[in-house]
Amino acid sequence: MTGPADGGLDVAQLFLALAAILVAAKLLGEFAERLGQPAVLGELVAGVLLGGSVLGVVPSAGAAGDVLHVLAELGVLLLLFEIGLETDLREMFRVGPASLAVALVGVAVPFGLGYVYWAYLPHPATGQGNLTTAAIFVGATLTATSVGITARVLSDLGRMATPEARIIIGAAVIDDVLGLVILSVVSGVAAGASITALGILRTLAVAVGFLVVAVLAGRFLVPRLFDVAVRMRVRYVLLVFAFAFALGLSAVASLAGSALIIGAFAAGIILSGTNQFDTIEREVRPVAASFAPIFFVSVGASVNLRLLDPTSPTARGTLAVAAALTAIAILGKIAAGWAAPWLPMRRLVVGVGMVPRGEVGLIFADIGRRSGVLSSEVFGAVLLMVMVTTFVAPPGLKVLFGRGPAPEPAG
Amino acid sequence: MTGPADGGLDVAQLFLALAAILVAAKLLGEFAERLGQPAVLGELVAGVLLGGSVLGVVPSAGAAGDVLHVLAELGVLLLLFEIGLETDLREMFRVGPASLAVALVGVAVPFGLGYVYWAYLPHPATGQGNLTTAAIFVGATLTATSVGITARVLSDLGRMATPEARIIIGAAVIDDVLGLVILSVVSGVAAGASITALGILRTLAVAVGFLVVAVLAGRFLVPRLFDVAVRMRVRYVLLVFAFAFALGLSAVASLAGSALIIGAFAAGIILSGTNQFDTIEREVRPVAASFAPIFFVSVGASVNLRLLDPTSPTARGTLAVAAALTAIAILGKIAAGWAAPWLPMRRLVVGVGMVPRGEVGLIFADIGRRSGVLSSEVFGAVLLMVMVTTFVAPPGLKVLFGRGPAPEPAG
Repeated sequence: MTGPADGGLDVAQLFLALAAILVAAKLLGEFAERLGQPAVLGELVAGVLLGGSVLGVVPSAGAAGDVLHVLAELGVLLLLFEIGLETDLREMFRVGPASLAVALVGVAVPFGLGYVYWAYLPHPATGQGNLTTAAIFVGATLTATSVGITARVLSDLGRMATPEARIIIGAAVIDDVLGLVILSVVSGVAAGASITALGILRTLAVAVGFLVVAVLAGRFLVPRLFDVAVRMRVRYVLLVFAFAFALGLSAVASLAGSALIIGAFAAGIILSGTNQFDTIEREVRPVAASFAPIFFVSVGASVNLRLLDPTSPTARGTLAVAAALTAIAILGKIAAGWAAPWLPMRRLVVGVGMVPRGEVGLIFADIGRRSGVLSSEVFGAVLLMVMVTTFVAPPGLKVLFGRGPAPEPAG
Repeated sequence: MTGPADGGLDVAQLFLALAAILVAAKLLGEFAERLGQPAVLGELVAGVLLGGSVLGVVPSAGAAGDVLHVLAELGVLLLLFEIGLETDLREMFRVGPASLAVALVGVAVPFGLGYVYWAYLPHPATGQGNLTTAAIFVGATLTATSVGITARVLSDLGRMATPEARIIIGAAVIDDVLGLVILSVVSGVAAGASITALGILRTLAVAVGFLVVAVLAGRFLVPRLFDVAVRMRVRYVLLVFAFAFALGLSAVASLAGSALIIGAFAAGIILSGTNQFDTIEREVRPVAASFAPIFFVSVGASVNLRLLDPTSPTARGTLAVAAALTAIAILGKIAAGWAAPWLPMRRLVVGVGMVPRGEVGLIFADIGRRSGVLSSEVFGAVLLMVMVTTFVAPPGLKVLFGRGPAPEPAG
C-alpha cells in the first residue's frame, strides 16, 4: 500500500503534476470566464504555461508521458460519452443532411486550398521529395475539426441544445470519420503506395459501418441489459457498467479502424435510450469533470512557444507558412457554414464552430515529418495553425452566440 | 483525436482490459452479495480470474502495466480520500488511544511469532544467507493491515459509523505508518546496514509528523480556501480542487517519506472540515466508485494460482510455510482485538477487521526475494498468506457483524 517508485515510474511525481494540471485548469478557466471567454480557453492557456516550452510540469515522454496520455484520452472519452448521453438522436437525424453537407464542404475546401497553395503558389519553407505528395499532406492537415474543443466551447456557453450546436457536433463527428479515411490515404502515400478508389471506399465503409451498426444494434439491445442491471444490488452498478461500455465501445471502434472518441460518442447515444439514462448522466458528469481538464491541458502543453519568436529567420519562414495555413483553415471552415442552404441557421456560427483543429491535423503532420515528406518548419507551421484555430474559435463563438437569444442556464 | 498506438502503448487494448475489469468486478461483486458476502470479495475473485494465472486480461508489465498500476493507485487514493471525508475527526480522537494499542499489539505479536517461527522452529523451505535476517523479513511481512480492503468491507457492510470500524480504520492507518518504519528498517537490513534506534526514530517521526502537521495546518487553512473557491463560476470547481488536493497531499506524503494513501486519507479528513463538505462528498463518490474496482481487481490479479497445486513437491513445502504464516497472521491480529481492555467493544470484530494483509507485506517479501534473503518458495508462501487473510476477513466480518444490531442503510 506504500508507494515506492517501481520500474522508473515515479507515481508521487506524476500525482503532483496532475494536481498542478487540475488546479491550473480551473484557475485559468475561471480567469477566462471572468474575461467573458469560454473556460476551455483558460484550460488551453494553462496547458501552454505548464507545457515543455514554459514550466515543463506536464510529462510528455517516458512512462509518465504514457500514463498522462491515457488519462487525457480517458478525459476526452468521458467528455464525448457525456455529450453522446446528452444528444437527442431524433434531433441529430433531423439535422443529419445539413451536418453531412457542412462536413463535406469543410473538408473539401481547406484540402483543395491547401493543396493549391503548396503545389502552385510560392512559399518559403520547402519539404524534400515529391511536391504533389507534400501538397496532399499539407491539404490533409487542414481538414479535421477537433470535436472535443468545439463541444466544450458550446457546452461552456450553454448552447448544446441549439440547432447550430447539433449541426456542428454532427459535422465534427462526420469530420472525424472522414479524417480516418484521409489518414489511411496519407499513410499510404507516405509509405509510397498508390491511392486506389477501392481502398478509400473500404476505409470509409468500415468507419461509417461501425457507427451505424453500433448505434442501431446498441439502441435495441443495451436498454434491455440495463433494465436487468438496475435490479442488481452492488453500489454504482449503472455508472460502472456505463463507464465500461464507453471504454469497450471506444476500444472496439479503434480496433475496427474507427476512432476511440467515435466509440465513446456512440456509447453515449446508445445509453441515452436506456430507462436509467438520467441516473447515468448525473453520475457520469463528475467523473468527466475530473478528467476532461487533463485532456485540454495536454493539448495546450503540446504547443511550443519558441515557434513564435519573430527574431529568428527560421521562425519567420515558419510564421509565414503558418499565417497562410491558418487563413485557409479559417476561411475553408467558415465556407462550410453555407453548405446547407435549405436549413435556416446562423451560418457564421456553424462555420466558426468548425474552425478548431486538433490532434488529427497534428497526427497527419507528424506522419509527414517522420516520413520526410514535410520539413520540420512545415510541421511547426501546422502546429501554429492548430494553436491559432483552437484559440480563435472560443472567443469567436462567444461573440457570435452572445448576439443571439439568451442562453439556457448552465448545468 | 484518432487513437493510433503511440510508443508501444496500445490504448484500445488497454481500454478493453479496463472494461473487462470493471464489468467482472461488478458481476462477481453482485454474486458475492447474493451469497451474503461483501462485494469486495467478488472483486478480488474477479482479479484472480482476470489475472496472469487464469485469463491474463489484466496487464502486469510494460507501458500498459504502468498505466494500470497508476489507475489502481488512483482507485485506492480516491477510496481512502472518500473514507477520510466520511471520518468524524472527534470520534477518531476519542478512539485514538485504543487504535494505537490495537495497532502496536497487531504489529508486535505477528512480528514476534513470525521471527520465532523462522529463527527457532523447523520449516521446510529455507532461504540463503543469515537466518536472523531472514527471520526479520518473515516477521515484517506479517505486520501491516491492508486498510483498503478492510475499509471496503466495513463500507460494504454499512458499518463505517460503528466504534469498532473507527478503531479498525485508525489502527490500520497507524499500521501503515509503522509499516513504513519497518520498511525502511528491512530495506536497510537487506542492503546490509546495521539497525540504529536513531534511524528508526527518524523514520517514525517523519511519518507521524507529516500526518499531524498536515491535518492540523489543513483543518485551519483549507476551509478558508474553499470558502473562496465556492464563489468561483467554473463548473465542478469544488470537486476538481478536492481531487487535486487529494493528489497533491498524497504526493507530498510520499515525497516526505510517508505513504500515498496516508496523504489521501489526511486530505479527506481535512476537507471534512470545510463548509462545502457535503457537495464534495456527493461528487467524489461516483469518481471513487469508477476507479476503486481497478485497485481490488489488481490486488486479486497478483495472485498466482499455480502456488496452490498440491501435486507438486515444491508447492507442498510452500503450502506448509504458508499455513504456518497464515495461522500467525490471523492469531496475531485477533490478539490485537484485546489490546485496549479499557474500551467496551466487540474485540473479535476488531481483531478480524485487522486480519487482511496486502501490498505492504508483498513489498517486504519482494525486497527480501530480490536481495536473496528469502527464497522464492518463501515469497510464494507470503503471497498465499496475503491471499488467505484477504479472502478470510470479509466473510468473517460479515458473520461477526451479522450477529450485532441491524446495520445502517447502505449509501
